[in-house]
Amino acid sequence: MPNQYTLKALDIGINTHQESVAYMREDCPVCRAEGFTSNSRVKISVGSRSVVASVNVVDSQVIPEGHVGLSKSAIQRLALDSVTDVMIGHADVVASLASVRKKVFGNSLDEADMQAIITDISDHLYSDIEIATFLSVCAGGRLNIDEIVYLTQAMVNAGKRLHWPGHDAVFDKHCIGGLPGNRTTPLVVSIVSAAGHLMPKTSSRAITSPAGTADTMESLTNVNLELADIRRVVNETGACLTWGGAVNLSPADDVLIRIERALDLDGEGQMIASVLSKKVAAGSTHTLIDIPVGPTAKVRSGSDAGRLASLFTQVGAACGLKVRCIITDGSQPVGRGIGPVEEARDLLAVLRCEDNAPVDLRDRALLLAGHVLDMAEHCGLEVAQQKAMELLISGEAYRQFCRIVESQGVFKSLPEAHYQHTENAVLGGTLRRIDNRKLARLAKLSGAPFSPGAGLRLYVKLGDEVNAGDTLFTLYSESEGERDYALEYYRENTDLFVFD
Amino acid sequence: MPNQYTLKALDIGINTHQESVAYMREDCPVCRAEGFTSNSRVKISVGSRSVVASVNVVDSQVIPEGHVGLSKSAIQRLALDSVTDVMIGHADVVASLASVRKKVFGNSLDEADMQAIITDISDHLYSDIEIATFLSVCAGGRLNIDEIVYLTQAMVNAGKRLHWPGHDAVFDKHCIGGLPGNRTTPLVVSIVSAAGHLMPKTSSRAITSPAGTADTMESLTNVNLELADIRRVVNETGACLTWGGAVNLSPADDVLIRIERALDLDGEGQMIASVLSKKVAAGSTHTLIDIPVGPTAKVRSGSDAGRLASLFTQVGAACGLKVRCIITDGSQPVGRGIGPVEEARDLLAVLRCEDNAPVDLRDRALLLAGHVLDMAEHCGLEVAQQKAMELLISGEAYRQFCRIVESQGVFKSLPEAHYQHTENAVLGGTLRRIDNRKLARLAKLSGAPFSPGAGLRLYVKLGDEVNAGDTLFTLYSESEGERDYALEYYRENTDLFVFD
Repeated sequence: MPNQYTLKALDIGINTHQESVAYMREDCPVCRAEGFTSNSRVKISVGSRSVVASVNVVDSQVIPEGHVGLSKSAIQRLALDSVTDVMIGHADVVASLASVRKKVFGNSLDEADMQAIITDISDHLYSDIEIATFLSVCAGGRLNIDEIVYLTQAMVNAGKRLHWPGHDAVFDKHCIGGLPGNRTTPLVVSIVSAAGHLMPKTSSRAITSPAGTADTMESLTNVNLELADIRRVVNETGACLTWGGAVNLSPADDVLIRIERALDLDGEGQMIASVLSKKVAAGSTHTLIDIPVGPTAKVRSGSDAGRLASLFTQVGAACGLKVRCIITDGSQPVGRGIGPVEEARDLLAVLRCEDNAPVDLRDRALLLAGHVLDMAEHCGLEVAQQKAMELLISGEAYRQFCRIVESQGVFKSLPEAHYQHTENAVLGGTLRRIDNRKLARLAKLSGAPFSPGAGLRLYVKLGDEVNAGDTLFTLYSESEGERDYALEYYRENTDLFVFD
Repeated sequence: MPNQYTLKALDIGINTHQESVAYMREDCPVCRAEGFTSNSRVKISVGSRSVVASVNVVDSQVIPEGHVGLSKSAIQRLALDSVTDVMIGHADVVASLASVRKKVFGNSLDEADMQAIITDISDHLYSDIEIATFLSVCAGGRLNIDEIVYLTQAMVNAGKRLHWPGHDAVFDKHCIGGLPGNRTTPLVVSIVSAAGHLMPKTSSRAITSPAGTADTMESLTNVNLELADIRRVVNETGACLTWGGAVNLSPADDVLIRIERALDLDGEGQMIASVLSKKVAAGSTHTLIDIPVGPTAKVRSGSDAGRLASLFTQVGAACGLKVRCIITDGSQPVGRGIGPVEEARDLLAVLRCEDNAPVDLRDRALLLAGHVLDMAEHCGLEVAQQKAMELLISGEAYRQFCRIVESQGVFKSLPEAHYQHTENAVLGGTLRRIDNRKLARLAKLSGAPFSPGAGLRLYVKLGDEVNAGDTLFTLYSESEGERDYALEYYRENTDLFVFD
């Protein structure tokens, strides 16, 4: 039994994101006796709770004698709300790191290895650099299909799992992402559940994009539902459109995604496990995966898309999930709005069958809804798409959307942004290329998704003949600074739109 | 040109080890406008200096409005000594990360890739998780011999390089480590330089052991010499015994070692590059590498040692360095003392040819010195060892040691530790095994190397017949707490000594 010392824990107001940090005085007798220096791993316990934290050494004036400062994440995990005595000692050896080392040395991981690693990661026992090592040696195609299956199952096992008693088939959809404005999910959920199929959908907030489905839905209703509320909404309506982060599905994924994003490491196996683990944990039996392909989309070639589709289908099958993948056009944004509120406007226009509703968003949603209905009813894609169209045109899908929104909370009206700027074309020509990534960045610089009303409304599509003076887009923002900064970015990136 | 903002920089007394951290208010307009959150990478500039830092978001009471808090390393790199206006903006894209990604995807790195990566790492442009990725995908035998050569050369190029005009041959030695008390370096340097060969030796402080050569030498004289002083000492005496950390040889290595150690990733290629880059940078032409092999040493089998020796020799040759490797017994500690002062006592006893001088330390030093003399004089190992012995017995090596010590500073007398505890054998038997790692840990828990007088004096060797009540070791410490904690560890680890 290693030595344990008692110190008083203080919240010192530092948010290190998820890694827990313990700020300790350089002259602290605990550091001295235990040999703790910056980056040492320590275990901090109070009652039955404990966290493992990395040490940062601080000057004696920062922390009073006999105290230890804790980062926000440590304070939260220990559930401390005032200065409290905590026990502190060397962190236990994390046994699963031996499995990570095994993978470093080129050996495959078995089911037990993968489960041990993922359990320890979701228990926050890994430091950020240890997570980086795990991700790095699994990226670059280094996970074989068995390992991807083990990883997916381990991620499911590490979190909560929903069950939908009385339902043999539970539907879900997922888009690989990378297309601004591609907000089909609420449309597909409304149509499919209007047809009587269960579609309890939890979505993410934006990670690197100007809006996630949860951000867009939040501009219309409450999305922070806990499990009991999700069950109630699904029982009432056969569907939901909530934020997945409020429930504990695949918690390891949240940890891994943070480091993956910081490393900009798009590990294919990791991504498949991330997506499918959330579907399995949410109780899905059938999932449609939309893989947009385009020069500035996430997937850039048909052959990459085909390989990805094959992996998704095989891993899904091994985890008891029927997966259908479709490869779609990813050459330009979908709809006109980019940013939570502007995307919500597009959604409502399609659902209400308004004249100005963006046709591309509507057609894309009907295609996806048709595929899900075909998975549910085995009626053939043509019949299924026809049915989807009828549910939309009849207003049944919109009524269903209203039921879901009202079951989750109040149906909010959409706000107007404080600042609007209309940008016109300087020269004319045929619009040949739109850089999805730069357009997304432009919308983010305007304040999206942090300011829900910020973003863009786009008036041009590929192939359009544009004349000098025609409006390209309207930029919405909540501060002059953000507006100016976004426009400066636009002026510097003259290849955002390419005409000839 | 991305936006730049001005904030006032504060030293907030936090030492994050080497990664620079910028502590920014959650309501800071810069965070808001630029989308900075915890872990964002920002560039902070003042005049011609700049650092790249990771953001930690803090509560508004921690940092005054219009300010940014900086970690110690950022304060030092910007050379700030008071509250100063700094410019802050998005960090530039680090182009060499594309090469790291190339390696993630299983491709070999060429000379230009490796140089770009190492230059950026030594310029502190990588975050810790990015360094972890680089190390992870290079570990596990994933560096081929060309890559190890490129890595070694890149590490040399990224730092200062010493030259010794007028000397065709410059000697060095290195031990792979893992044996407590194995303090041969000062003996070898004294003997070889007494024979008239140049041996400017810079050593490290303890990383994970109870003492490094620099720690032991520091108990006898000044070791913090800058380049000009090292040159003076070497000109005066033909040798030196200083701390390498005070000069900027292979600075990337210092960054890499910190993360490697935290990950406990013993990348073979990385280790070879680390050792040889410091030799080349120090201007060596001939290096002897001592590879102790034993069940609790760093290298555990003869075949591992052989492969390592072959890699060392080949990489050395490609970098213009003549390397000779010898494989030695690594089954038990060397000498009697463990810890800076106790090891210094052994050294002096050997140099002064005292009756109680540890024979194993003396014989080991003569073997190594013989090999270096043979490399220098091509006289054959037998003649060379005889010569080493004569230089020791005649007192010439001791007089040379005194010259070096006095040229570096004052010849200090060794202190006595405040607390001593004598530990006797409970049962008797033949001593069959000593766990080097646990013994090193015991010495560290007693306070070494932080308290130079702390450590152990060991009275038993493998094969000794020990009776109940015989003294096993004396433990030295500067506080009762450290003494008690070390002894508690000893009582719990009953396999530290194995008798039968």
